[in-house]
Amino acid sequence: MAKKSATLVMNELMFDKQSKGERVVNLGFGEAGLPVLPSLTKIAAEHLPQNSYPYVQGGAQVRKSISGYFQRRGIASDSELCLTAPGSKAIIYALLLAIQGDLILSRPSWTSYGMQAQLMGKKVVWVDTPEVAGGIPDPSLLQQAIDTDRAEGGNPRILLITNPDNPSGTVSPADALSKLATIAKNNDLTIISDEIYRDLAYDQKQYVSIAELAPERTIVTTGMSKSLALGGWRVGAATFPKNDLGQRLYDSVVGSASEIWSGMAIFLEPVAEYAFAEPQDVRQRVVQSRILHQKVSHAIYEIFEAAGAKVREPNGAFYMYPTFRNTEIAERFGVTDDRQLSSLLLAEKGIATLPGRAFGDKPERMGLRVVTSMVYGTNDEERETTLHSQDPVNEPSVRQALDHVREVLL
Amino acid sequence: MAKKSATLVMNELMFDKQSKGERVVNLGFGEAGLPVLPSLTKIAAEHLPQNSYPYVQGGAQVRKSISGYFQRRGIASDSELCLTAPGSKAIIYALLLAIQGDLILSRPSWTSYGMQAQLMGKKVVWVDTPEVAGGIPDPSLLQQAIDTDRAEGGNPRILLITNPDNPSGTVSPADALSKLATIAKNNDLTIISDEIYRDLAYDQKQYVSIAELAPERTIVTTGMSKSLALGGWRVGAATFPKNDLGQRLYDSVVGSASEIWSGMAIFLEPVAEYAFAEPQDVRQRVVQSRILHQKVSHAIYEIFEAAGAKVREPNGAFYMYPTFRNTEIAERFGVTDDRQLSSLLLAEKGIATLPGRAFGDKPERMGLRVVTSMVYGTNDEERETTLHSQDPVNEPSVRQALDHVREVLL
Repeated sequence: MAKKSATLVMNELMFDKQSKGERVVNLGFGEAGLPVLPSLTKIAAEHLPQNSYPYVQGGAQVRKSISGYFQRRGIASDSELCLTAPGSKAIIYALLLAIQGDLILSRPSWTSYGMQAQLMGKKVVWVDTPEVAGGIPDPSLLQQAIDTDRAEGGNPRILLITNPDNPSGTVSPADALSKLATIAKNNDLTIISDEIYRDLAYDQKQYVSIAELAPERTIVTTGMSKSLALGGWRVGAATFPKNDLGQRLYDSVVGSASEIWSGMAIFLEPVAEYAFAEPQDVRQRVVQSRILHQKVSHAIYEIFEAAGAKVREPNGAFYMYPTFRNTEIAERFGVTDDRQLSSLLLAEKGIATLPGRAFGDKPERMGLRVVTSMVYGTNDEERETTLHSQDPVNEPSVRQALDHVREVLL
Repeated sequence: MAKKSATLVMNELMFDKQSKGERVVNLGFGEAGLPVLPSLTKIAAEHLPQNSYPYVQGGAQVRKSISGYFQRRGIASDSELCLTAPGSKAIIYALLLAIQGDLILSRPSWTSYGMQAQLMGKKVVWVDTPEVAGGIPDPSLLQQAIDTDRAEGGNPRILLITNPDNPSGTVSPADALSKLATIAKNNDLTIISDEIYRDLAYDQKQYVSIAELAPERTIVTTGMSKSLALGGWRVGAATFPKNDLGQRLYDSVVGSASEIWSGMAIFLEPVAEYAFAEPQDVRQRVVQSRILHQKVSHAIYEIFEAAGAKVREPNGAFYMYPTFRNTEIAERFGVTDDRQLSSLLLAEKGIATLPGRAFGDKPERMGLRVVTSMVYGTNDEERETTLHSQDPVNEPSVRQALDHVREVLL
């Protein structure tokens, strides 16, 4: 039996408070918070008369566009080994079904990875993140964790990383990825690299994918939910290695897909084909979004930093992960674990966040996943204005949210 | 490891032949073969600017519409226990995950039921269908099958039926359903009733849902893929019993959904809300479609009947299931099992069907699943003309397909 995800429970509680007229700053729900790019709406509308069942893996044209997207990023990709799905979450689920053995996850990491493993009775080996970034296990702890799992009769086979990551909004440096790639090779691990936030890494030139370092064993997943703010449209994609392993996993994922979800809504294929080809308006939109996320994340980071939380400065996506163990705030609020802190912030202080335990973290660290992208406006017009503002931090909606958070924390 | 579904493999092979310019009559792919109702396209287009993540179970309005749809059909339904998903296939998968124990399936039954069970290592107890209809286990064999499974250490807990069914296109009579409901009660089985073809039962007045007979233990699934021909849009729905069992399964399915597929594309919620409310244009479209399916199915049935196959006359949906054991055709074609027959028909005779084994049937019965709805035209204009024709069997596209099948079989 599965429970509703923590993210969605929090979201519903927050809407409930808001519907009662209470003011809540939404730092809780991991959505990009921006309107749809008009060219994408137009393409979708034109193709709505299509109603045939889709190819499970997506048609040849959209897969060609996806492989081009990866190739431009230095990732070897063959369109015959690319696929689409209604969200990359579904692809990751089917991958975890396809690969026997234990799943190695960083602590903290995105809620659904651990929950998916739980749904299928798969063991999770949790490894703390390094100081330098979230979304990856600490390379200096990984081999030990693998050895311990084996000693306990486990069979560690899958390394799932997120880069940039949710919950910390940080990009993994190349040297850490290189160490992980070596350990993965030495231990015959298959790597799933969730790169759905890749185009929102603030410094694109510095970005390295682990698929460049271990191309023979890495499946890369992505989607249109984050850099193009299309979470509600459900568009995911992936590329698999061109070898026996890749073909075997590809066939298995397509097989599971055909029995669980059939495919992505067919009229979204031309949308994905267009977006992954990255024409001018898409590129520009992604750059604008990235700059906005960076500016607002930085402003919110400064508040948490000033409040005495331990927090990495975000350098990608629209998240951060402050922890509050041994802080003045924890003492002042009289809380001793993450859920107490997060509940108090929502119930009494009007700030929605998610407690670290939803990401597999230890409650006593008092971690909070903070989303920075839901403060851009209360309707599409405001959000569009914020997106194009030279000084988004001083747009009314953002300013109001920051003032509220500052008032509570400082 | 899962394999691509038989349906989709056949579909791709068929397109391959067609792309080489070979003529193939598509009696293979289970799609409704009709264009989108324009009002639905319009509503979807209007809501494309919505891009937030959906509620996993669907918003309150669409769930209210879904419960009304079921209530009008005599099925007790509470909107708090209704949900949407990207296809009813996904809902059934999550239900099978949620309910421990073995799955009782009729033989033959829709491919994906058995494949889903296989994906999660769930045992299937196969029970032959009765003479009177497909989609249900023979009530006179069911208790014995349950007892045998228990004697072998099994734990039979789920009865999954389809009414009207795929592959045979038949509606289950009330007395057979009543016997199944009694056996389900006596053995504490949870019933999943897949009623996605319900509105295409040719005699709506005769239709009975098993949810009317065993409301305390029946989950009913439906969708917009068949009666509204929207397979490619991915819209499914379900209603759960208002009791502890129903609430527990509902929560579990929503929990799995939140970790596997998140929800249906959000801009399709208003479409589903409109369609399940059944305004005049939707009702009219469904009636027109039903009449068309009935006329063409009957014409194709007459050919298979004349060819000496054993086949039930369809009284719902757009399928039939002829078997060819001990027939002149099997002898003439020199085939001894279903796959040989189906392969020969596609490769040499230009008729695509699916072999019965894809539906769990015994190869030596030489069963073929025949779809009757893919011959209405080669484009939306032709299909729309066929839909509104007083004599669809004599529309050029239908006539040509029937002539080809007649020529091959008679």
